[in-house]
Amino acid sequence: MYTNKVEIRVRYAETDQMGYVYYGNYATYLEVARVETIRSFGISYKALEEMGVMMPVLEYKTKFIRPAKYDDLLTIVVVIKTLPNVRFTFDYEIYNEQNQLLNVSETTLVFVDATTMKPTPAPQNVISALKEFF
Amino acid sequence: MYTNKVEIRVRYAETDQMGYVYYGNYATYLEVARVETIRSFGISYKALEEMGVMMPVLEYKTKFIRPAKYDDLLTIVVVIKTLPNVRFTFDYEIYNEQNQLLNVSETTLVFVDATTMKPTPAPQNVISALKEFF
Amino acid sequence: MYTNKVEIRVRYAETDQMGYVYYGNYATYLEVARVETIRSFGISYKALEEMGVMMPVLEYKTKFIRPAKYDDLLTIVVVIKTLPNVRFTFDYEIYNEQNQLLNVSETTLVFVDATTMKPTPAPQNVISALKEFF
Amino acid sequence: MYTNKVEIRVRYAETDQMGYVYYGNYATYLEVARVETIRSFGISYKALEEMGVMMPVLEYKTKFIRPAKYDDLLTIVVVIKTLPNVRFTFDYEIYNEQNQLLNVSETTLVFVDATTMKPTPAPQNVISALKEFF
Repeated sequence: MYTNKVEIRVRYAETDQMGYVYYGNYATYLEVARVETIRSFGISYKALEEMGVMMPVLEYKTKFIRPAKYDDLLTIVVVIKTLPNVRFTFDYEIYNEQNQLLNVSETTLVFVDATTMKPTPAPQNVISALKEFF
Repeated sequence: MYTNKVEIRVRYAETDQMGYVYYGNYATYLEVARVETIRSFGISYKALEEMGVMMPVLEYKTKFIRPAKYDDLLTIVVVIKTLPNVRFTFDYEIYNEQNQLLNVSETTLVFVDATTMKPTPAPQNVISALKEFF
Repeated sequence: MYTNKVEIRVRYAETDQMGYVYYGNYATYLEVARVETIRSFGISYKALEEMGVMMPVLEYKTKFIRPAKYDDLLTIVVVIKTLPNVRFTFDYEIYNEQNQLLNVSETTLVFVDATTMKPTPAPQNVISALKEFF
Repeated sequence: MYTNKVEIRVRYAETDQMGYVYYGNYATYLEVARVETIRSFGISYKALEEMGVMMPVLEYKTKFIRPAKYDDLLTIVVVIKTLPNVRFTFDYEIYNEQNQLLNVSETTLVFVDATTMKPTPAPQNVISALKEFF
């Protein structure tokens, strides 16, 4: 298992007239948390794309428990429960500064070869970086 | 059961460098489809909020089957399978102009009294407008 | 001179906690108005990109006069005052349903050859489509 | 004069299919830079709103010199050239990690009393915090 924490400050642009973060904007927070988690074990997602590997999202499930609000400093706890193969699943919990649980999410991505646009196994550098945690 | 179709044209702003619609932007498409579906049976979501009823999203699940691309004219098929009570669930399928299925999603919203911020049953005008379909 | 009108409905996602359309979202409205204006004289921006011509924005100026609000059906009046050369300038006025002027904007784009990434004159099909209006 | 620097990492969501940051997303970067600049001299924009003072944008001008790209760590230099009165003007320059100038912008905001929705002079705590720099 691999765990990481990422902090994100809520932007005004991300609120809606309900005074909450718009539900669609959590996907961006999860993207940032995912990319910073990958960086934390030594891989740059940008470099993966430059190597010809893309990671589109296949599936995304999210439960909204309490609203995030403007200027909140959110903590996103990211958990990787299994070593990636062709697919790579991330679990997330989002907390506010009062340590209240706001959101629970799961995303499944797929490694895709940018030339053939076909699914492909996780690159060796990703597996090498992660395998000591599993 | 109540079914409705809504068309949305993909904006440049909604694409990402993969050349696809960014996965987080589907939530906005579903919002538009939901609001236009509510309008199609005679209810304005804006008027609901002005009456003091809000509808935040509780849960959202989405599967990405094929990518939506810039300038695609998408058709979103919205299905309401059960009369709302405190919760209101919508199912969606998104198709492109070649009638390929791109995405399957489900959202569950909750009616909230804007004064007390507590869950509340669906307003009578929503039930009246929908009950002939169930 | 070439003039066109485009209608856009404000989405919930585009509001902020002030209850107005977030100032950054007007750029997307102008993009939609621009693309539909180009389509109105017979050119598809998507086809231009597929031909190897891109049109990044060089300059953008905007004045916010009154706020746009959720569910407003906006009318964007687009004016092309001069035939494009390497640059292409669009002027915009945005009105709400009460015909109140909400916003006045100007954008200047540049034609870029996608292979060399250098500025290039407007494609011949754009000039041919527009020259009868000037 | 008051100057401040703010760093922002480009998110995947903010790119478009040209492979650049979408031109509309710079407005959000400027918002973050503005709010962090206000925080740097001791004022919370969130607290201003809670006190009943809002700051909508009146005018925004921006020039795009070079593109910002995915994962770039941008530095935004914010300059306040004059003490605010009813209006508050910020100037910005955005640089990438190679210290290349990407963007030059200016925004003018107005202080608005949230009760009357009328323009109002800058709150005393804003003036007190800033006056030593002018």
